[in-house]
Amino acid sequence: MNDRQRPGDPAPYYEAHVFACVNERPEGHPRGSCKARGAIPLRNYMKIRAGELGLTHVRINQAGCLDRCELGPVVVIYPEGIWYAPRTHDDIDEILDSHLKQGRRVERLMLLPEQKQPAAE
Amino acid sequence: MNDRQRPGDPAPYYEAHVFACVNERPEGHPRGSCKARGAIPLRNYMKIRAGELGLTHVRINQAGCLDRCELGPVVVIYPEGIWYAPRTHDDIDEILDSHLKQGRRVERLMLLPEQKQPAAE
Repeated sequence: MNDRQRPGDPAPYYEAHVFACVNERPEGHPRGSCKARGAIPLRNYMKIRAGELGLTHVRINQAGCLDRCELGPVVVIYPEGIWYAPRTHDDIDEILDSHLKQGRRVERLMLLPEQKQPAAE
Repeated sequence: MNDRQRPGDPAPYYEAHVFACVNERPEGHPRGSCKARGAIPLRNYMKIRAGELGLTHVRINQAGCLDRCELGPVVVIYPEGIWYAPRTHDDIDEILDSHLKQGRRVERLMLLPEQKQPAAE
């Protein structure tokens, strides 16, 4: 249990629930948006690959603005609450295989809570 | 920690992260949709009221299809993974006050994992 769970809470509906921001903002908005940063094809690829890998208890969802636009495209995986900023299909494959299949972490793509800007390339 | 968390994981970015399905399907679709069942005004009300109540570490997000359409409009609250089917502003107020502010559960609105159809009224 995490510190927000209570004894007697129902079992999880999804083993892991992934939310990929696909929010769009008007062109030229100072914060940009995950969609402008390529979120939609990445999210679509993630959904298809999760199916191909047989991750049947994992749901790959789209979400509105997660309010970390500068770091986008961002995804968050619950219940563990781990945030990633994938840029490529390889990044998605690594998150699916290492995090969702093996229960590890992909440190190079993880976002920290205090992080406001992308790490230097 | 829940059983998907790992020692060394970053602190949560949001204390509670609420996802409200606002998915729309074509009229007449056999599963219906959360939007057709009134999801959008309820989600908007929830977001405004959360702000008014000072729930600053809670994010009220919109989400694409959570795949529990028959039960909609549905919301899920992470990291605890509790699902609710609110129908009215009063339902939203109770979830905000009891669940998100006081850390309790609103049993009458909770969805169980095996539930496929709404409870009888």
